[in-house]
Amino acid sequence: MSCVDFTHDPATRSWVASANGHPDFPLQNLPLGIFAPRGEKPRGGIAIGDAILDVSAVADRLDGDARQAALLAGQDTLNDLLGAGPEILRALRHAVFRILSDPSQEAAVRPHLYRADACALHLPAKINDYTDFYAGIHHAENVGRQFRPDNPLLPNYKYVPIGYHGRASSIRPSGVDVVRPNGQMKPPHLDAPLFGPSRRLDYELEMAIWVGRGNTLGHPVPIADASDHIAGISILNDWSARDIQGWEYQPLGPFLAKNFHSTLSPWIVTMDALVPYRTAQPPRPAGDPAPLPYLFDEDDQQSGALAIRMDVHIRTPHMRETGAAPHQLSSGSMTAMYWTIAQLITHHASNGCNLSPGDVLGTGTLSGPTPDSRGSLLELSVGGKEPVALPDNEMRSFLEDGDELIITAYAERPGFARIGFGECRAMILPAL
Amino acid sequence: MSCVDFTHDPATRSWVASANGHPDFPLQNLPLGIFAPRGEKPRGGIAIGDAILDVSAVADRLDGDARQAALLAGQDTLNDLLGAGPEILRALRHAVFRILSDPSQEAAVRPHLYRADACALHLPAKINDYTDFYAGIHHAENVGRQFRPDNPLLPNYKYVPIGYHGRASSIRPSGVDVVRPNGQMKPPHLDAPLFGPSRRLDYELEMAIWVGRGNTLGHPVPIADASDHIAGISILNDWSARDIQGWEYQPLGPFLAKNFHSTLSPWIVTMDALVPYRTAQPPRPAGDPAPLPYLFDEDDQQSGALAIRMDVHIRTPHMRETGAAPHQLSSGSMTAMYWTIAQLITHHASNGCNLSPGDVLGTGTLSGPTPDSRGSLLELSVGGKEPVALPDNEMRSFLEDGDELIITAYAERPGFARIGFGECRAMILPAL
Repeated sequence: MSCVDFTHDPATRSWVASANGHPDFPLQNLPLGIFAPRGEKPRGGIAIGDAILDVSAVADRLDGDARQAALLAGQDTLNDLLGAGPEILRALRHAVFRILSDPSQEAAVRPHLYRADACALHLPAKINDYTDFYAGIHHAENVGRQFRPDNPLLPNYKYVPIGYHGRASSIRPSGVDVVRPNGQMKPPHLDAPLFGPSRRLDYELEMAIWVGRGNTLGHPVPIADASDHIAGISILNDWSARDIQGWEYQPLGPFLAKNFHSTLSPWIVTMDALVPYRTAQPPRPAGDPAPLPYLFDEDDQQSGALAIRMDVHIRTPHMRETGAAPHQLSSGSMTAMYWTIAQLITHHASNGCNLSPGDVLGTGTLSGPTPDSRGSLLELSVGGKEPVALPDNEMRSFLEDGDELIITAYAERPGFARIGFGECRAMILPAL
Repeated sequence: MSCVDFTHDPATRSWVASANGHPDFPLQNLPLGIFAPRGEKPRGGIAIGDAILDVSAVADRLDGDARQAALLAGQDTLNDLLGAGPEILRALRHAVFRILSDPSQEAAVRPHLYRADACALHLPAKINDYTDFYAGIHHAENVGRQFRPDNPLLPNYKYVPIGYHGRASSIRPSGVDVVRPNGQMKPPHLDAPLFGPSRRLDYELEMAIWVGRGNTLGHPVPIADASDHIAGISILNDWSARDIQGWEYQPLGPFLAKNFHSTLSPWIVTMDALVPYRTAQPPRPAGDPAPLPYLFDEDDQQSGALAIRMDVHIRTPHMRETGAAPHQLSSGSMTAMYWTIAQLITHHASNGCNLSPGDVLGTGTLSGPTPDSRGSLLELSVGGKEPVALPDNEMRSFLEDGDELIITAYAERPGFARIGFGECRAMILPAL
């Protein structure tokens, strides 16, 4: 596992002036993505302040592993770079930190910086498989309580990191509109289902874990090695049609209720950037079972959680018309996870399932213990029974056409820079 | 939808002598796959008798769409060929049928035939997303009855083609051994789960539908157009660890119980080859609801089912040692599907979910109505309570290490050739 090093020193400044004090992308972050200047081909970039560094274009200024990494970043997906493993990613981080903080490099490197607002941002990798977990225990309790008031968590929850496979093909980067899905739903007052636009369209506040180095089919990943397989983190909005979900999900789980669209923020904040914000996994409540041995590692318990804060805002058509600022719906923390991300990786591969570079693992909805930290409208509106009050007398039980959801996230800690994830944003379009 | 044409004439013979009367690969079949002669690169092939035609090597002998198709087949996956659409696939079929039946072509084409038993067979395409349905109604009833004797089918079953997302990365072609998975399971007599090798390892007899032309995210596929998006069919064994499944699957469905391995037969039997074996969808039992309008098409009801027969054999270590033939466990028919494959495609895309060329849709386990047509050991042994008797006093409730499962399938109809799918075969290795 990596440690705090010179790249986490908040005192080091970049010659990219907009990076210094940037809320998301200071020199200490250096997240990876795929960008395309207008009319040019997509390739790997690193966000620095308001700019993006064209990584492969500076490969000749780097040596050894860092040069190899920069050359891999010249492709239109980062799969090969992510799969090259943590040492290679770390070498790139160290080298890019040096050139962006060394004024003598400015003249040669500046031509390879692009204004971020003039670039398209793509998905960072070709996502071959997408798994969504259910590790947010408060979400599981909030949702479970709506169905089973006295017994919200099923007996397996505290033993098994519950997860299921999602749809990889319909994941899109921030900014791509979401078409309201049609589907089957059966309102309680009807004897038979009907087919039409979802009336209970919702968001889910999640974080996404990017798999780095893969494992071979049939070969599990011991918990002590799990961090070698994790490249970084982004924000994920796992859009959900609650009415479709309620009718279809038994006995094999969610399907069309989820696979019409998922939105990812475009930057991978690397595990190396997140080192200062690692924290102890919150102790399990008294009476909870200990993790089974294959999921337990003392180091992981001591520092396997991440102090990342997420904020969710909504912008309705009325707010856009009146020029009002987006309204905050909730905020949450990644420490709401009952399992660490290492435990998710190890559990996923425990039967020999092979993870591949660029796979995405969703955490599940990350609600906190308080009402203002509920990570979905299903929870905020208590299944639609208590609509959420917005400014100007607007109300929402679920999302309406034209609503825009904006999720942001950041990590901060005294003595270190604040680093952020950028935006995970999308707007709802009417059903076809 | 395509019709019977000259390529279905059983009287036409090939100059590839082994094709004439071949139980699987006569001239009238021409299935697509990816093969590699020893030491050579994988590329597209067509099975003909005991041989494989190197498709792109004969591109220069073809014209127009057929030539374009043959060139696409030169890649190491068939995704682009499958995605080119049914007209292109049909042009290739017509042209290859002509050259393999025309003796004047033999001298020029024979150098591009390889002995199948000297070639490796790969997966036909890069599978980006794998969906498994639950369309075998007798299986759903048999399994449901083990949990809910009086009410085996849930209320949604006859309205919703139930499905869930599977794992694409762990699909392997026929012949790759399956490592018995480890996992969490909770036997009823224990208070807490344990972790170890699955003791209830099972197979599932399924067929796999290959997506051809894709659809754009947000744009459903009307039922009348569904057949344009289906390239062909293979055999699928969806290996399942019943003990892991029983403990993990609530509330989000199967996960580690399934994603450790799935086995596909290596040849895609095209929808054009299957035209003569199309048949009417069996009428729904009296009292069942009609399909909702988006899932109903008169032509599809009249000819959207496929009269394909499947046979399952087991070969135990004892049978191998004694030289005994594999023992037939069951046989079934693809007409056990409650939904047509067009209905599966249309339902899957009904919310706008985008299907891509090379995606695989499993039918779900295809058990028939009789005890000898049950498509899994879970059903054959009634949840392990009634072990299956094999020759020489062997018994099986679930699969043991060294057991080999062999699934074959074929279609036949008076007045037409019999065409087959090849083998879907794999052996169980001990857990790590």
